[in-house]
Amino acid sequence: MDASATLALLLAAVIDGAEARPDAEATAAILEGAARFAAERLAPLAPVSDREGCALAGGRVRTAPGHAEAWRDFAAEGWAGLTAPAEAGGSALPLALASAVQELTDAAHPAFGMLAINARCAIRLLERHGPEAVRAAWLPRLADGSWAATIAISEPGAGSDVGRLRTRAERGADGTWRVTGEKCWISFGDHDLAARIGHFVLARPRGAPPGTRGLSLFLVPSNREDGARNGVAALRLEEKLGLHGSPTCTLAFEDAEAILIGEVGRGLPTLFAMITAMRLGVAVQGAAVAGAAAGLAEGYARERLQGGDPAATPVPIAAHAEVRRLLLAARAATEAVRLIALQAAAWVDAGDAGDAAAAARAALLLPVAKTLGAEAGFDNAHRAIQVLGGAGYVRDWPAERMLRDARVFALYEGTTAMQGLDLLFRRTPAADGAVLRDTLAQLAPAPDLAALVLDTAAALAEATPRAREGAAVPFLRLVGLAAADGLLRRAAARAGPLAPRYAALAAFHAAEAGSRAALLAARCRRADLDAAYDAAFEP
Amino acid sequence: MDASATLALLLAAVIDGAEARPDAEATAAILEGAARFAAERLAPLAPVSDREGCALAGGRVRTAPGHAEAWRDFAAEGWAGLTAPAEAGGSALPLALASAVQELTDAAHPAFGMLAINARCAIRLLERHGPEAVRAAWLPRLADGSWAATIAISEPGAGSDVGRLRTRAERGADGTWRVTGEKCWISFGDHDLAARIGHFVLARPRGAPPGTRGLSLFLVPSNREDGARNGVAALRLEEKLGLHGSPTCTLAFEDAEAILIGEVGRGLPTLFAMITAMRLGVAVQGAAVAGAAAGLAEGYARERLQGGDPAATPVPIAAHAEVRRLLLAARAATEAVRLIALQAAAWVDAGDAGDAAAAARAALLLPVAKTLGAEAGFDNAHRAIQVLGGAGYVRDWPAERMLRDARVFALYEGTTAMQGLDLLFRRTPAADGAVLRDTLAQLAPAPDLAALVLDTAAALAEATPRAREGAAVPFLRLVGLAAADGLLRRAAARAGPLAPRYAALAAFHAAEAGSRAALLAARCRRADLDAAYDAAFEP
Repeated sequence: MDASATLALLLAAVIDGAEARPDAEATAAILEGAARFAAERLAPLAPVSDREGCALAGGRVRTAPGHAEAWRDFAAEGWAGLTAPAEAGGSALPLALASAVQELTDAAHPAFGMLAINARCAIRLLERHGPEAVRAAWLPRLADGSWAATIAISEPGAGSDVGRLRTRAERGADGTWRVTGEKCWISFGDHDLAARIGHFVLARPRGAPPGTRGLSLFLVPSNREDGARNGVAALRLEEKLGLHGSPTCTLAFEDAEAILIGEVGRGLPTLFAMITAMRLGVAVQGAAVAGAAAGLAEGYARERLQGGDPAATPVPIAAHAEVRRLLLAARAATEAVRLIALQAAAWVDAGDAGDAAAAARAALLLPVAKTLGAEAGFDNAHRAIQVLGGAGYVRDWPAERMLRDARVFALYEGTTAMQGLDLLFRRTPAADGAVLRDTLAQLAPAPDLAALVLDTAAALAEATPRAREGAAVPFLRLVGLAAADGLLRRAAARAGPLAPRYAALAAFHAAEAGSRAALLAARCRRADLDAAYDAAFEP
Repeated sequence: MDASATLALLLAAVIDGAEARPDAEATAAILEGAARFAAERLAPLAPVSDREGCALAGGRVRTAPGHAEAWRDFAAEGWAGLTAPAEAGGSALPLALASAVQELTDAAHPAFGMLAINARCAIRLLERHGPEAVRAAWLPRLADGSWAATIAISEPGAGSDVGRLRTRAERGADGTWRVTGEKCWISFGDHDLAARIGHFVLARPRGAPPGTRGLSLFLVPSNREDGARNGVAALRLEEKLGLHGSPTCTLAFEDAEAILIGEVGRGLPTLFAMITAMRLGVAVQGAAVAGAAAGLAEGYARERLQGGDPAATPVPIAAHAEVRRLLLAARAATEAVRLIALQAAAWVDAGDAGDAAAAARAALLLPVAKTLGAEAGFDNAHRAIQVLGGAGYVRDWPAERMLRDARVFALYEGTTAMQGLDLLFRRTPAADGAVLRDTLAQLAPAPDLAALVLDTAAALAEATPRAREGAAVPFLRLVGLAAADGLLRRAAARAGPLAPRYAALAAFHAAEAGSRAALLAARCRRADLDAAYDAAFEP
């Protein structure tokens, strides 16, 4: 079965909350449409975007030839507004289904999909926290792709360290806000795909306290109501390793008109509605590239003839044992992160529908989904290059582009280290550990894996903060291993015609899960990092 | 201590065979000179080579601006002829010292160093197998860099599968040979750095049997004695992920005049003198990029301020636990592969001096050194990007270039799968396992690691060929883990002022070596690859 049929089956039979989604037939039709758009429009554009990149001239960014037309048609087919409310012209579909669509389109062209993620996140934020007039103006335009959005947090002096942001906001006598400062690493910070771009900017009102509590969230449009340019300019366009189709900008805000979103001093909590969707978006990007790379390697290995008995014709390289190991590892990683991302999305959906326990599970699973998705995308591109051999290292094949594109997934929207800290310091202790227990109960990994996660969490609860800092990432990987184990087993039990394949992958994964989990659990309890660092680097 | 001083100390006190090398003072002076050339000439050239790449026009390749001048001065300082015999104008230095020089220059610009590796391999081959007249003509010119060499094995239909090579050789009535065929993936297959290029080509004389036994080795010069062009043309220049400074060519040989090297039908065994040095060269390339990436990450982490108590000034990111883990892992990997590569080189040197047991140990360790070096180079570039965060993903910093350059190391000169098969099927059974036992005795890893390697080898000796194919790469990694453990311990015992640092790294590595080794040993005995593959992909 192809990716769209597989995703349809997973949404119907494996991922929680099928009753809240369109029925199997409608789901399959939507996913087939997305796969068609991906194959016909995005796959041909991807190498063009990669090679041509974007250009900055006169403070404005130009995207690659064909990008604007593809975005226009993508939006016209309704893909930009999948999750927007019906009254704004959207399809009001749940995130789980939108994520499956995203996986299909990002598999062809992840840089293109960045703008759709931004739109989805902005829609989610405005639905919850947007003033009435802002919702009325922005939601329909975000849904039809004629306007766009960004999320602007990082500054040159503060990336992960949000508490030190320095962009200022001032309220004028007439009550209007103005924002001044510099923001960097802004994806689609400027472009020629939409008439207006709304920047969601964290800034510090005059007199606000230092740290994150002093931050408020503002919507800063690129153009004013009257069409005149607002005080926003693209200062710089990054030259990146990959994702060349997605312009990454430094933006200067100079006395720019701004609209407060949410309450003063609640910028970061307000923004979390957007960050939730951003993390999910990266998890899905990772799953998408992981699947594309795995599929590329599988196809190549079936076609490429080499080796075998010298007296006979050469065999497909898929016959070689090490190639099989690479293909199995790539496929198992793909299916695991696809399942984890979809399950996280389904729990976000359930949370949005009022199920607080599901929302808490989603918050716990999202840093795991984001990190494992990111790593699977990169690792599978790496594996695909190894399967392709020299062909993997050259531009004739897309494996090297996948590697370059995927490398950023573990960096943006919170590095792996930040995801680990979020999981261990904020999500794991929630409700005295009940959220972790509930999540594990739902994911249902092998009992020894679940017990190891809980024992490790209990031990870490007693550990020093410094020891927990060191344990954060290995703990995240341990939870990820349990999540993969549980969801692969669930797919093996429920995925109908695909159940035997999932059973094979679940068994392949489970064969080493126990020893890998033991290694990670031991790493969580290692207390030698600081001493080793001092001895190795500062004797 | 800087890299040149560290390498001088390792060669004097840690790596076997110091008595066969120049004394500590002379060694240090040579390495300081190499480090100076690397810093002053190669580091500034590397980004130019990466950005400008090479160009193919009219069947000839042009390198990036500045490359030719740098090569001329590199050769004039004697770096191209380090291992060439004194009578050819070379320095007649052992490979261990030449490898340390290579590590320093490749750390700055690995693509530049490819031509020097080719020259070193050709010198080694001609010393052993070159007819008198060929040695007299080529050795001085290879040593002074005025002529160059390539190794031309792969063909479009046969990369790893050497037995299927189809390039033909014909002997004329006058006894001269002519070669016709197409070779691909030839590093520095053409360029503007030397007046003449000698291609070492595997070809099949008319009437020779199929398979590797039918292959003979020929030297095909780019130009004839009279200066006229020989029947060799560059058909194609690959557009690669990295190593843009090294032109990778497809070459057409059309009735090209050729000189037989070694005996008819002994092409592959003859070429092995060159392949030995090639594998060592890649091992050192990997160690070089690993060290450069680790050093970049360490320096950045000390300078970049972010995080810590929000009320205080931000701290260097080297204070953060996860950054420390990444830095420790990168440094431990660097030192391990550097030691393994140097030890392999020293054993090659001892073998060249007549110690057959050392030559056998070198042959066993080289596939391990090549693979671990390749992976450490890539993994450390990956870690450096993670430490640098967004800065690691953009071209302002060299981390992303290191990642792109290093990715090929695990592909060329025999993929990881081929290295694993060589180790398990050819080297491990040698002398009834005595070579493996001797190698482990010399490397002296922790006794339980050594025992696990030997037990695994014994079990695999009884296994089916198919099971051994599946075990080849995990077995290679297991041997590599033992080698790293043993050599880090040895450095911790003998490295004088650096002993405490090596002790810290040895302990950091050892803390997980046992459980990682157990996982690898279990993987060597897994028998589920084929069944899992069939169930997952061909139900």
